[in-house]
Amino acid sequence: MLGRILCTVLFVGAFPSPAGASQGHISVVLLGATGDLAKKYLWQGLFQLYMDQVSSGHSFTFHGAALAALEPGQRLMFDVLKKLSCPPDEAPNRCAVLKDQFLKLSQYHQLKTAENYTALSREIETLLHQEGLKEAGRIFYFSVPPFAYTEIARHINSSCRPPAGAWLRVVLEKPFGHDLESAQQLAAELAGFFREEEMYRVDHYLGKQAVAHILPFRDQNRQLLDPIWNRHHVERVEVVLKETVDAKGRTSFYEQYGVIRDVLQNHLTEALIFLIMELPANVSSARDVVQHKLQALQSLWGLERSSAVLGQYQAYNSQVQEELQEEQGYVSTTPTFAGVLIRSDSLRWEGVPFLLTSGKALDERVGYARVLFKNRAYCTQSGTLRDSGHSQCKPKQIIFYFGHGALNTPAVLVSRNLFQPVMPKHSWKEAEARSDLHIFGQPLSDFYTYSPVKERDAYSVLISNIYHGRKDFFITTENLLASWAFWTPLLDSTSRQSPRLYPGGVENQQLLDFEMVGGGVAFTLAEPAQLLTPSGQMPSDFRAIQSKFRHSPLVSAWAEDLISQLASDMEEAAVRSVARCGQFHLALSGGSSPTGLFQRLARHHLGFPWRHTHVWLVDERCVPLTDGESNFLGLHRHLLQHVRLPYFNIHPMPVHLNRRLCVEEDGGAELYAKDIVALVANASFDLVLLGVGTDGHTASLFPRSENGLEGAPTVVLTESPVKPHQRMSLSLPLINRARQVFVLVLGKGKHDITTLLSRVGREPRKWPISGVSPSSGQLVWYVDYEALLG
Amino acid sequence: MLGRILCTVLFVGAFPSPAGASQGHISVVLLGATGDLAKKYLWQGLFQLYMDQVSSGHSFTFHGAALAALEPGQRLMFDVLKKLSCPPDEAPNRCAVLKDQFLKLSQYHQLKTAENYTALSREIETLLHQEGLKEAGRIFYFSVPPFAYTEIARHINSSCRPPAGAWLRVVLEKPFGHDLESAQQLAAELAGFFREEEMYRVDHYLGKQAVAHILPFRDQNRQLLDPIWNRHHVERVEVVLKETVDAKGRTSFYEQYGVIRDVLQNHLTEALIFLIMELPANVSSARDVVQHKLQALQSLWGLERSSAVLGQYQAYNSQVQEELQEEQGYVSTTPTFAGVLIRSDSLRWEGVPFLLTSGKALDERVGYARVLFKNRAYCTQSGTLRDSGHSQCKPKQIIFYFGHGALNTPAVLVSRNLFQPVMPKHSWKEAEARSDLHIFGQPLSDFYTYSPVKERDAYSVLISNIYHGRKDFFITTENLLASWAFWTPLLDSTSRQSPRLYPGGVENQQLLDFEMVGGGVAFTLAEPAQLLTPSGQMPSDFRAIQSKFRHSPLVSAWAEDLISQLASDMEEAAVRSVARCGQFHLALSGGSSPTGLFQRLARHHLGFPWRHTHVWLVDERCVPLTDGESNFLGLHRHLLQHVRLPYFNIHPMPVHLNRRLCVEEDGGAELYAKDIVALVANASFDLVLLGVGTDGHTASLFPRSENGLEGAPTVVLTESPVKPHQRMSLSLPLINRARQVFVLVLGKGKHDITTLLSRVGREPRKWPISGVSPSSGQLVWYVDYEALLG
Repeated sequence: MLGRILCTVLFVGAFPSPAGASQGHISVVLLGATGDLAKKYLWQGLFQLYMDQVSSGHSFTFHGAALAALEPGQRLMFDVLKKLSCPPDEAPNRCAVLKDQFLKLSQYHQLKTAENYTALSREIETLLHQEGLKEAGRIFYFSVPPFAYTEIARHINSSCRPPAGAWLRVVLEKPFGHDLESAQQLAAELAGFFREEEMYRVDHYLGKQAVAHILPFRDQNRQLLDPIWNRHHVERVEVVLKETVDAKGRTSFYEQYGVIRDVLQNHLTEALIFLIMELPANVSSARDVVQHKLQALQSLWGLERSSAVLGQYQAYNSQVQEELQEEQGYVSTTPTFAGVLIRSDSLRWEGVPFLLTSGKALDERVGYARVLFKNRAYCTQSGTLRDSGHSQCKPKQIIFYFGHGALNTPAVLVSRNLFQPVMPKHSWKEAEARSDLHIFGQPLSDFYTYSPVKERDAYSVLISNIYHGRKDFFITTENLLASWAFWTPLLDSTSRQSPRLYPGGVENQQLLDFEMVGGGVAFTLAEPAQLLTPSGQMPSDFRAIQSKFRHSPLVSAWAEDLISQLASDMEEAAVRSVARCGQFHLALSGGSSPTGLFQRLARHHLGFPWRHTHVWLVDERCVPLTDGESNFLGLHRHLLQHVRLPYFNIHPMPVHLNRRLCVEEDGGAELYAKDIVALVANASFDLVLLGVGTDGHTASLFPRSENGLEGAPTVVLTESPVKPHQRMSLSLPLINRARQVFVLVLGKGKHDITTLLSRVGREPRKWPISGVSPSSGQLVWYVDYEALLG
Repeated sequence: MLGRILCTVLFVGAFPSPAGASQGHISVVLLGATGDLAKKYLWQGLFQLYMDQVSSGHSFTFHGAALAALEPGQRLMFDVLKKLSCPPDEAPNRCAVLKDQFLKLSQYHQLKTAENYTALSREIETLLHQEGLKEAGRIFYFSVPPFAYTEIARHINSSCRPPAGAWLRVVLEKPFGHDLESAQQLAAELAGFFREEEMYRVDHYLGKQAVAHILPFRDQNRQLLDPIWNRHHVERVEVVLKETVDAKGRTSFYEQYGVIRDVLQNHLTEALIFLIMELPANVSSARDVVQHKLQALQSLWGLERSSAVLGQYQAYNSQVQEELQEEQGYVSTTPTFAGVLIRSDSLRWEGVPFLLTSGKALDERVGYARVLFKNRAYCTQSGTLRDSGHSQCKPKQIIFYFGHGALNTPAVLVSRNLFQPVMPKHSWKEAEARSDLHIFGQPLSDFYTYSPVKERDAYSVLISNIYHGRKDFFITTENLLASWAFWTPLLDSTSRQSPRLYPGGVENQQLLDFEMVGGGVAFTLAEPAQLLTPSGQMPSDFRAIQSKFRHSPLVSAWAEDLISQLASDMEEAAVRSVARCGQFHLALSGGSSPTGLFQRLARHHLGFPWRHTHVWLVDERCVPLTDGESNFLGLHRHLLQHVRLPYFNIHPMPVHLNRRLCVEEDGGAELYAKDIVALVANASFDLVLLGVGTDGHTASLFPRSENGLEGAPTVVLTESPVKPHQRMSLSLPLINRARQVFVLVLGKGKHDITTLLSRVGREPRKWPISGVSPSSGQLVWYVDYEALLG
């Protein structure tokens, strides 16, 4: 029967040219052919593809597939197909003909067992053989729940691959995992069946016209944007999706995902990346685009708990209780609203806040990505006059408007006081300059506004891109994992947090406004008492414990809070010291523990008196300073390059003299000791930061070290039991001259040594850390719960 | 007769307490007693002082003085005094009595000759002796033209000083010079007659209530302001004085001064400094205030031509022609409008633009100092709703409103979304929250608005402060000179510039709007053709000449333009090199010539790829790197500390090894050569910047040097004929390996050597610079007009 259908089509002229010039045949298999997504978008997208490509030289067959048996499946599917519609600009006659052809080219299959897949493959081959057609490729569109992925993938791979010379494209719908680990696992499974270039992961936002036009816009307006697309001119970037609906009816899905996984990790991140990525010289090179996207993702600063504010629609919890049949006392902490502050480490965007926001049950339905420029003008004429015309003092912005909201259409808006953008005339038209409509506080007439000549559904855009093999409209595995690597720490650190409850709709008022505070974000209004959850708020786990450890003050908390406390204490010490004597001498340890501390100091402590701070090293490995193992390199990467220390105040250890490493006669240790004596009053550092090894070592002073555990306050060469063996270190007596010594101990791995240290006395030859006891200064222990409690 | 008047006063109860408890007598001498300022403000201020202090325990006499003879002077003066008025809140009875007393205590003197002064002094002494009064002090108020200052000062000093134990206060009115040099000269002259603490230089803006309240406001709201009064929160600071009047009738004064000297150098700078200075712990310590003001002035970045936009009211030129009887062709370049961008080098304000603006014939009369804060909030609710209430997304500002304008009263305004300020209740009252009145684009109801309980004229405030000896309300010599040192370079560099003409009033529209562009400011609109001066525009002197010098390309221009061209060429070279091979190796010379270049690179070239640039030294003096003579220190101060170079990319010459300087066996030169070989491909720098000495030396290669002029491409120790003698330098052969060499020659002092070099051949032993000829690279000469043309 299929053979007959195809023949008919061939005869009625689906091919414009003789069969000899054919580009080959494409089989499209839609898995989940009778599901919601297929009904709503995918069949219509495939029909659109057919209409667009009927004269391309390719021939097509469309195979709907599901688990249902042939007969009921067929009926269900053809009910959907009958409702397909032509775009309004299509001639009704042509439409009727094409729709008829499309129906004839479409067929239902039950795909359940390996045999089903083999049979499908054989059918396609037989047909093509009969018709004398070359096979161009097969598209498998997975519109099925994620648990079904692996089995389908296995079947396709083993039983339904096209023959050599024809391509395979599998189209995957989200969710692509739940966090980094699950995404990695899923990616690894799929990699067992498909090659990277065969997989097309859909984020339908990449098919939305306004999002898809971000890169072309940047490219076509390159000359005008180049000078202003950077931290000197951009005040902030906002990417926003506001919804009026809530999660009712979808809580079984939503309760597992929440707004960050549902919207921010994918849609909003993709739009942001299009805005901030470096623009490749050739934006139509999918390879370059994908690579630059990845680089932009990797340039983002890691998220912390303070990077986000979370909210939950007040009615959500009872919807969950009802739909998931949870008991009365059940409290969901799933956020339905999030505002997240993101920053990039790139030179272009340093210091520019990127704000991502999304929520359900808000006051309006709207989505946009907005670049707001700084006001760099002074307008001499007073207010009233300034408003007529297109003053430079008015806000300047470029907005990619996804749709809905006041405009109710996708659009690109550029403030008239910026420039008139170049737009492709065939696909975008200038909209009427209505001054009665206000958008972002300005009349629409203040903007050059463009909307699509023809509004296209995201899925039909994407299906067209699958057909054209445009991988840059899809999420590569690398990109996906980079995005999860970026978002997972925030998901982890906020999982125990109670979101702020909000009443929904316009009643939210200013309850969800948030602002940037000290490197993070916080709600602007204090938590209103009447909105506190009645059903028992979760206690905060994050209280810092203060007590004693080895007779010295102990600060303990979860790692993140501990580090934030330590950083504040360090800033306080620095400010005090600078006020007292004009400078602050700080000796820092290397290793991985202080990395988070360094980042926190660089990002959150903008008032730290760096200009008056001298930074010394507690110890160093005998490697060149630019070696990956160098303590100094880590310190530079995470702290020094982000703050403004005078060059003269930076004191790396001279482990590399005369182009060789830690040679005794080069006298590096003596030199460092002399520098300390020359610059640090009384050779007494204002603050020394130490760590502890699992063997009880501190600085580079190891158990039974021959040097540095006693004797003169000096700098010594030592031997480490692990590579690189040679080290340089402050001696214990020199450390003990400090005014303050802070010891930072983090992680489960340190639990045993922490427990041991709590019991033993001063035995520096066994456990060098136990010899730390400042002769006239203060010692404070900063130990996280995991190290303290195991 | 004076004796009788005083007795009368004593008897009618001018003294509240018995003569024994008297605080002593104060004689106030007003020089220029019948002049405009005296008529308008000073007598009224003295009467106010008398009313305020009549019960203070001090007794007073008031001596008007002028050059006119006794009889006509007396008549003129008493005509003024009769018109004195009491403040509305004074009881009419008391007012009448006090005014009568004041008139009796006031007397006219002709002060012309030394004898006149001696006579005045003797009169005061005789009177006090008769009345048994102790002399507290004498106030001399100079309300006379500046040319009269010196003679009056000499007379006072030699013939009219009070006896030991009593103080002398001389009050000086501006102008205090015309530029730094003339101000220094005037200050030196006055210093021959008066001690610093005796001089009270008036800037009447310091007596304006809103200006005078800046410091008390910052002090009383210290806790709320501390976290936000810095670059992280402040977007910009504006200090503005707009006038509607023009200079008609005053052109003989104005033509010599212009708006910068008339308003910006004094009034606006003073208000700015109050805003940005570090707040002393004790704001009532005049000494601390004066000292912190000075530090703030000294922290400002030097002004350049591009720091300002200048305008001239279109009718001004014909007013000048008419009033000064200049011929028809006369063209004045005196600006009547200026907008200036100022930046501070302090940590607190780094990157925050301070905009000072003033002009005549503008659309409104208003003055204010305004601190605008950054919007750090995201408001989730959409526009319309956001506007009700005091959203964090509305602009946040603090405004010290000098007067006039929409409010028509001095005021302090604080946005309600910031905080409710602490204000002294006895002197400032909260104003009505009118929402019909808009100010800076917001309804007045968005602000906490305070106005003075009692409006006081600036002069009466200042006269009261003279009486109380509050030196911080006046301009010290140090402050005055620091202000001139700051403004003079701008005055010099713009003196030849044609200001933009503007039609005046509301017709100016957006013609005077300006914006920040690449470190400076520029008018937003291009010069409109129809407004170009009809009477022959001045030709621009500032064109860069391009030709040849010593067979290599020559770029020549006035120094500032030359440096800006050189900086652009360097950035271009850097960008090209980074694009080619990922890095840029730049070798820089020390000395004074490149300082301007370094500053320009740091401030204007925000796109310079510093992260990928390595900076090397061409030569160095054998002094510690932190020594004032060190080339590296200068480079660090003017360039490195303002840009973000990785620590590893900074390569000072190792002149200081093993804690000693340039000792042969420490091998510093060899070490540097090895570093170059290790890091710079082929030891070929991408760009070497050189200078030329008057003796033809370049780098630290001096005529007849034994090292470095020929031989290997290496680094050498050399001897300078001037101190410090010992130097380290790249050798000529190493310099000649560079891909590009730029030679910068600036100033008249270099004219002779430039002329000579244009004539001689390659003789490096005589003139080392003549040996610079890159073997396969390019040499470009950047020589300014003064060096080239003498």
